[in-house]
Amino acid sequence: MISILSFGPDEGLREGHAPADLPALLGRADRVVWVDLASPSRAETAILTDVFHFHPLAVEDCTAPRQNPKVEDFKDYLFLLTHGVHPDASVREFKTRPLSLFVGRTYLVSFHREPSRSVQHAMESARHNPKVMSDGPDSILYNVLDYQVDQYLPVLANFEKKIDDVEGRIFTAPTEAVLAEVMDFKKALMRLRRISGHQRDTLLRLVRREFAVIDEKAIFGLRDVADHLVRITDLSDTYREQVSDALAAHLSIVSNRTNEIMRVLTVIATVFIPLTFIVGVYGMNFDHMPELHWRYGYLGVWIVMILVVAAMAWYFRRRGLLGGRW
Amino acid sequence: MISILSFGPDEGLREGHAPADLPALLGRADRVVWVDLASPSRAETAILTDVFHFHPLAVEDCTAPRQNPKVEDFKDYLFLLTHGVHPDASVREFKTRPLSLFVGRTYLVSFHREPSRSVQHAMESARHNPKVMSDGPDSILYNVLDYQVDQYLPVLANFEKKIDDVEGRIFTAPTEAVLAEVMDFKKALMRLRRISGHQRDTLLRLVRREFAVIDEKAIFGLRDVADHLVRITDLSDTYREQVSDALAAHLSIVSNRTNEIMRVLTVIATVFIPLTFIVGVYGMNFDHMPELHWRYGYLGVWIVMILVVAAMAWYFRRRGLLGGRW
Amino acid sequence: MISILSFGPDEGLREGHAPADLPALLGRADRVVWVDLASPSRAETAILTDVFHFHPLAVEDCTAPRQNPKVEDFKDYLFLLTHGVHPDASVREFKTRPLSLFVGRTYLVSFHREPSRSVQHAMESARHNPKVMSDGPDSILYNVLDYQVDQYLPVLANFEKKIDDVEGRIFTAPTEAVLAEVMDFKKALMRLRRISGHQRDTLLRLVRREFAVIDEKAIFGLRDVADHLVRITDLSDTYREQVSDALAAHLSIVSNRTNEIMRVLTVIATVFIPLTFIVGVYGMNFDHMPELHWRYGYLGVWIVMILVVAAMAWYFRRRGLLGGRW
Amino acid sequence: MISILSFGPDEGLREGHAPADLPALLGRADRVVWVDLASPSRAETAILTDVFHFHPLAVEDCTAPRQNPKVEDFKDYLFLLTHGVHPDASVREFKTRPLSLFVGRTYLVSFHREPSRSVQHAMESARHNPKVMSDGPDSILYNVLDYQVDQYLPVLANFEKKIDDVEGRIFTAPTEAVLAEVMDFKKALMRLRRISGHQRDTLLRLVRREFAVIDEKAIFGLRDVADHLVRITDLSDTYREQVSDALAAHLSIVSNRTNEIMRVLTVIATVFIPLTFIVGVYGMNFDHMPELHWRYGYLGVWIVMILVVAAMAWYFRRRGLLGGRW
Amino acid sequence: MISILSFGPDEGLREGHAPADLPALLGRADRVVWVDLASPSRAETAILTDVFHFHPLAVEDCTAPRQNPKVEDFKDYLFLLTHGVHPDASVREFKTRPLSLFVGRTYLVSFHREPSRSVQHAMESARHNPKVMSDGPDSILYNVLDYQVDQYLPVLANFEKKIDDVEGRIFTAPTEAVLAEVMDFKKALMRLRRISGHQRDTLLRLVRREFAVIDEKAIFGLRDVADHLVRITDLSDTYREQVSDALAAHLSIVSNRTNEIMRVLTVIATVFIPLTFIVGVYGMNFDHMPELHWRYGYLGVWIVMILVVAAMAWYFRRRGLLGGRW
Repeated sequence: MISILSFGPDEGLREGHAPADLPALLGRADRVVWVDLASPSRAETAILTDVFHFHPLAVEDCTAPRQNPKVEDFKDYLFLLTHGVHPDASVREFKTRPLSLFVGRTYLVSFHREPSRSVQHAMESARHNPKVMSDGPDSILYNVLDYQVDQYLPVLANFEKKIDDVEGRIFTAPTEAVLAEVMDFKKALMRLRRISGHQRDTLLRLVRREFAVIDEKAIFGLRDVADHLVRITDLSDTYREQVSDALAAHLSIVSNRTNEIMRVLTVIATVFIPLTFIVGVYGMNFDHMPELHWRYGYLGVWIVMILVVAAMAWYFRRRGLLGGRW
Repeated sequence: MISILSFGPDEGLREGHAPADLPALLGRADRVVWVDLASPSRAETAILTDVFHFHPLAVEDCTAPRQNPKVEDFKDYLFLLTHGVHPDASVREFKTRPLSLFVGRTYLVSFHREPSRSVQHAMESARHNPKVMSDGPDSILYNVLDYQVDQYLPVLANFEKKIDDVEGRIFTAPTEAVLAEVMDFKKALMRLRRISGHQRDTLLRLVRREFAVIDEKAIFGLRDVADHLVRITDLSDTYREQVSDALAAHLSIVSNRTNEIMRVLTVIATVFIPLTFIVGVYGMNFDHMPELHWRYGYLGVWIVMILVVAAMAWYFRRRGLLGGRW
Repeated sequence: MISILSFGPDEGLREGHAPADLPALLGRADRVVWVDLASPSRAETAILTDVFHFHPLAVEDCTAPRQNPKVEDFKDYLFLLTHGVHPDASVREFKTRPLSLFVGRTYLVSFHREPSRSVQHAMESARHNPKVMSDGPDSILYNVLDYQVDQYLPVLANFEKKIDDVEGRIFTAPTEAVLAEVMDFKKALMRLRRISGHQRDTLLRLVRREFAVIDEKAIFGLRDVADHLVRITDLSDTYREQVSDALAAHLSIVSNRTNEIMRVLTVIATVFIPLTFIVGVYGMNFDHMPELHWRYGYLGVWIVMILVVAAMAWYFRRRGLLGGRW
Repeated sequence: MISILSFGPDEGLREGHAPADLPALLGRADRVVWVDLASPSRAETAILTDVFHFHPLAVEDCTAPRQNPKVEDFKDYLFLLTHGVHPDASVREFKTRPLSLFVGRTYLVSFHREPSRSVQHAMESARHNPKVMSDGPDSILYNVLDYQVDQYLPVLANFEKKIDDVEGRIFTAPTEAVLAEVMDFKKALMRLRRISGHQRDTLLRLVRREFAVIDEKAIFGLRDVADHLVRITDLSDTYREQVSDALAAHLSIVSNRTNEIMRVLTVIATVFIPLTFIVGVYGMNFDHMPELHWRYGYLGVWIVMILVVAAMAWYFRRRGLLGGRW
Repeated sequence: MISILSFGPDEGLREGHAPADLPALLGRADRVVWVDLASPSRAETAILTDVFHFHPLAVEDCTAPRQNPKVEDFKDYLFLLTHGVHPDASVREFKTRPLSLFVGRTYLVSFHREPSRSVQHAMESARHNPKVMSDGPDSILYNVLDYQVDQYLPVLANFEKKIDDVEGRIFTAPTEAVLAEVMDFKKALMRLRRISGHQRDTLLRLVRREFAVIDEKAIFGLRDVADHLVRITDLSDTYREQVSDALAAHLSIVSNRTNEIMRVLTVIATVFIPLTFIVGVYGMNFDHMPELHWRYGYLGVWIVMILVVAAMAWYFRRRGLLGGRW
C-alpha cells in the first residue's frame, strides 16, 4: 500500500496523492513529500526505480531479509536501513523488523514489509503538527527514528525483569529448564546487541554532519536518538555479561548441592558400614567363636559400636564434615 | 525549589533573587548567575524553556530517569548530564543520582530531582570564597564536579573491603549465600563501570578544549576530575575481574571439598564392603560348609580380613588416596 | 587453462583469444580484457610475469597455499587475494578456496587453482550482459566478488541450523560425541571468522576510494559486498560465542545429571544402610541376646525400622533432597 | 628533608644550598637546579607553592595516596606522577611507591614520601658524572626514570619464578592453599598491570615530542624507558592469563582426582554389593530352603559368585572403567 | 666474529675486509657495506660505538637478553630488534633468538649472539645474486627478514599438528599429563603471540613509508614479510583459543566420565542394597518370626525381590538412568 503526504507553504498538508502525481510533486522545490510503502506490491515497489531512480542495490536491500542496520550516501539521497522492535516482543523469540528509509532534499521514502508503528506514529504526528513536515525530510526522519528507538525501552525493561527472575530461580531450583532459558536469553541478547550496535553506529554517522541532507537543526534530535542507542547497546552488553555469570553460577550451585548430598551419604555410609561389618562378624556360624558364648558378649559389641560411632562423630566434626549447614 | 545566586564585580555575591529577576540578571554581561533547581515543581521547571530557551530535548533529558552521563554542545551553552553517588551507598543496592548542568557564558543552571550534596557543597564554597563565582560558570562547574567525584572514593573503598571479605568467606564457607552476594557485587560493579566510564568520557571531552564556554583556567581542575574518573573506571574493571575470579574459585573450592568427602567415603567403603562380604559368607546356613567346623576357622577369617585391610592400605597409600590432608 | 575475453566499443564482446594476442589487446586503451587462469600450467602462469610484468611477490602469493585475504596497491594495478567457499562446504571440514585477482586500468586477471564458481558465474554474466565488461575491470571485479560473497550465505545458514541442532542435543543427550562436534564447530567458526574478517577489511579498503583503479560507480556495488562481509563476520562472532556457551552448558548439564543420580543413590543408601545394620544386629549368634526371645521382638524391630524410615523421609523432605524433580 | 643540587657551566656541581637560595638559583638561566623533597615536612612542602608557584592541584596530587601514573602539562613545567617498586617486593603484598616530578626549563623537583632508590641513584650519578645535570632537567628525569624502571625487572623475574612454582604445585597437590595463592597472584598482577599500563602511557606521551621541556636528545633515553614499560605491561598480561589458566587447571585436576576416586569406589562396590546380597540369601533362616541341604550348595554359591565377578570384570574392561591408570 | 661484505658498481662484491678498512668503506657513497657481528667479542662489539657511533642505548639493546621486537629511528640510521625461531623448535621449550639490525643509507650492520640462519642465508644470496646488495641496505634487510619469517612457518605447522594430537588425546584419555601439555602449549603460544605481534607492528611501521632509509622498491618486499607476520599472529590467536577450549573440554569430559561411573554405581547399589536388607531381615534369629515357618516363605521372598528389581528397572528407565549409552 502506498500513502503519499505532501506539504507546501501555501497549501499545507495534503494527503491521498496517487503515485502518478509523484513526478509533479517532486518537481517542486517548495514541497516536502513523504511516500510510505507498506508491504508494497511488486508494481508499487517499482516506483523506487522508475520514479525515484534509486540505486538498484539500495532497492534490493529494502527487500533483503536479514541485513544489518546501515546508512549509505548516494550523493542526492541517503539510504538508511534500520530495525524496529515490537514492544511486546517475547524474549525467547526476540525479532526485529526492518524499515528502510530514503532521505532526499525534498522527500522521504519509507519502505517496510510488515506494519511499522514508528511510521504510523510519525504520520499521526505529521497530521496534527505541520512542523513535522515543514521542517523537511530530516525532521520526518527524526520523528520516525525517535519513536522507533522508544519501542526498544519496554523490551529492555522486560529483559531486565526476566533476567532477575531467572537469576532468582537459579538459586531456588537450578534445573536444566532454567539453563535452557538462560541460553535462549543469551541468544536474544546477542541479536539485540548486534542490531543495536549497528543502528547506533548508523545514527552516530548521521549526527557527525557527514551528510548534506541532514540539517543542523535535525542533528540535535538525532543525537538524542543516538544517545538512546548507546544506552541500549551498553545495557545489552551488561545483560549479556549478567547472563554469562548466571550460567557460571548455575554450575557452582549444582556443584554445591552435589557436595551437600555427598556429605549426607558419606556420613551415613561411613558410620553404618563398619557397624554392619561388626554385626556381620557375630552372625558367622563357626563352631568355635568364643565371644558368642561370653556372658556380656552382646553388651560388649554394643559398647564397641557406640565407641566407633563416637570416634567417627569426633573425626567428622574435626574435619568440618558436619559443620556448615549440616 | 529554586535558588538563585549572582555575582558582580561591583556588588559581590547576592542571593535570594526571585525567578522573575532572571531575565534582567542574565542580560548583564558582567554578572555570573547560578540557578539551582532542586526537585523543582512543574512551574519552576518551565523557566528552562521560557527564560533560558534551552533545547526541549535537553530539558527532557533532565527529567528522564536513566540516561547515561553525557555532554552536549548547543553552541550558546553546554548541557551536561552527570551521576553522583551517595557515599553511604550500600553495595547490594548501588544507585546513582543524576544531576543535570547547563553551562552558559554567564550562567550555570543545575537541576536535580533528589537532594545533591555536590551542589550544596559548591554553594557553600561560593558563599565563603568569592573566587568560585567570579571565575565564571566553568569554575562553579569544576567545584560541583570535583565534589561529586570525591563522593565516589568512599564507595570504592567500601567495595574493596567487601570484596576482600567475600573472598575470605569463599575459602572458609563456600555457601550459596556467598555466591548470591558475589553475583550482586558483579551487578553493582557493572553499573558503576558503565556510569563512571561515560562520566569519564564526558570529562575527557570537556578538557579537550572542545567547548568554547570552558576556559583555559578551568581545564586544569577538570583534568583532575577526569583523572579521578579514569582511576574509578580502572578500579571497577579490576574489581569486576576479581569478582569473576571469586566465582571461579568458589567452584574450585566446592569441587575440592567434594573430592575430600569422596575420599573419606571411598576409603571406608572399599575397606569394609569386602570385609562384610567375607563375614557374610560364613553367615550362610549351608549344611555342608567345612570351614565352619575347622578348629581355627574363625581365627583364619580374622587373619584373612587383616591381610585384606593391609593390602588395601598399601594400595591406597601408593595411589595417594590417603596422602594430602587425609 | 587460460580464457581470454575482450570488449571494445566497436567490436563488442569477443572470446577465444590466444595468449599470444594479449600484448596487442592490452596495448589498446579502448578495450577491456579479462584473462582467467584456471588451474594454469607452469607455462600459462608465466604470462603473469612475462606479459603483465606483475611483481614477483604478488605472483608468488597466487600460488601460496594459505595466505589471508588482502589487497595490495602496485600503482598500475591492484592485487587482491580473496577466499571463496563451496556452498555445500560441510561444517566439519570447512575449507575456503583462494582466488587471486589483478585489476588494472583496462584489464582484470583472475587466477585460481581450483574451479571457481564466482569466476564462472561472472563470465556467464559478461556473455549475456555487455555492461559487465564495458563498465571496466572494476565492474568485472564487483561481479566476481558479489557472487563470491553470496556463496557464504548458505554456508552460514547451514552453520546456524547445525548449531541449533547441537544445542538441542546437548540438552537431550550430553555425550562426548556432541562435545567433539562442538569443538569442530568452534574450529570451523574461528577459521571462517579469520578469513571473513580479512576479506571484510580488504573490501572496506577498496570502497574507501583509496585506489585509483576503482571507479566511483563501482564503489556502490563493492560497498554492498563489504556490508555482506561485515554481516558474515558479525555472525561468525555470534556463533562462536553461542558455541562457547554450548560448551559451558554441556558441563552444567552433565553436573546436573550427576547431581540427580547422586540424589537417588543417597536416598536409597541412607535409608537402607541403617536398616541393614539393624537386621544385622539380630542376625548375630550370641548366646545371650534377650531381645531375640521377646514375644514381640520381631514386631518391635519392624516398628523401629519404620520409625527410622519415617524420620529420614521427614529429614530429606525438609532438606529438599526429595524436592524438585525427585 | 630537602636536598638542592645546582650545576652551572662556570661553577660545576654544587650541593647544600639552603631553600632560601632557591629564588636566586632559579633566576639564572644558565644554572640547572634539582630540588629533592624526601618525606618533607609541611613547611618544606610549602616551597612548591611559595617558590615554584606550582598549580595547587598538582601539589595536591603529590600527597594523594593512590593516584595512577600520569603526566600533565602546565605550560611552564611538566608534572609527572610515577610509581616505583621495591625490588624485593613480595608477590603477596605487592606495593608501589609514588614519586612525583616537576620538570621545568632549568629545574627538576622530585617529591616522595618514602625513600626513593631511583632518586638516590640518580643523585649519585649526578655527583660522579657532570653530564647528568649539564644536559638539563630532562636528562635528570631520564636518569631517575631509567633506574626506576630497572627496579621492576627483578620483581617480574620473581613473579615468573613463583608462577612456575605454583603451577607445579597445582599438579602435585591441588589444595585450597594453592588456590588462595593463585588468587593473591592475580590481584598483584592486576595491580602491576594497571600501574605499569598508565606509566607506559605516560612515557609514550613524553617521547611523542608533545612537551616543550623535553629535548630531542632526551627522547632517545626516554624511548628506551618506554620500551621497558611496554614489555612489563605485556608480561603482566601474559602472567595474568597464565594465572587464570592455572585457576582453570586446578578445577580440572580436582575433578580428575574425584573421577579416579569414584572409579575405585565404583569398582569395589559394584563387585561386592551383589556378592554380599548372594551370601545374605543363604544366611536366611527359612525352614524350607532346599539349596541349603544340597550336597554341593556351598560350592555352587562360590561358583556363581566367581562367575558374577568375571562378568563384571569383563564389563568394566569393555567400558574402560579399569582402563587408564587403574 | 666479524664478516664484512662490500659492493660497488665498479668492483662488484668483495669480501674479507678487515674491521680497520671500515671507515674508508663507509666514506664512499657508492659502496654498499654489510657488517655482520656473529657472537662478537667485546672488542668487536666496540666498533658499533667507535666506528658507527651508534647510540649507546641501541648498542645496549643488542646485548639485552629479552627485549621485544621494535624499530627505532635515529635519523641517520634505523635500529631494528627482531626475533627469529629455530625451525625445529620444540613446542615445550619454545624459544626465539634475537637479531639486531642497524640500517643506514649505505650500510647494514647485523648483530647476533647465537648463529643466525637468516643472516647466513641472506649472505649466501648476496654472494650468488649481486642485486641483493646493489639495491642497497634495505634490500639486504628484506632478504634477512624474509628468510627469518619463513622459519616461523614450520614451527606453526608443528604447533597445529601437536594441538590436533592433544585434542584427540583429551577425548581418548583425559589424564593430567595431557592437561600439563595443554598448559605448556598455552605458554608457548602466548610467547609466540607476544613476539610475533611486536614483530608485525615493527614491520608495519617499516612499510608505512615512515623511515627515509627504506626505499619505495623495498616496501613491496617488506609488505610481504608483514603479511606473513599478520598471519602468524592471527594463527597464534586462533591456536590459543583452541587450546583454551581444549582446557574446557577436558573438564567436561572428565565430568562426563564421572557421571557415567556414578550411574553404574547408583544402578548397582540401589538395586542390591534394598535386596540385601530384605535377606537380612530373614537372617534374624528371633524366636517368633512366623514367615520363617511358612511353606512358601522362601519362594515369597524371591518373588518380592524380583518385584522390587522390576519396579526399580521401570523407574530407572523412566528417569533415563539406563538410557543413553548404558
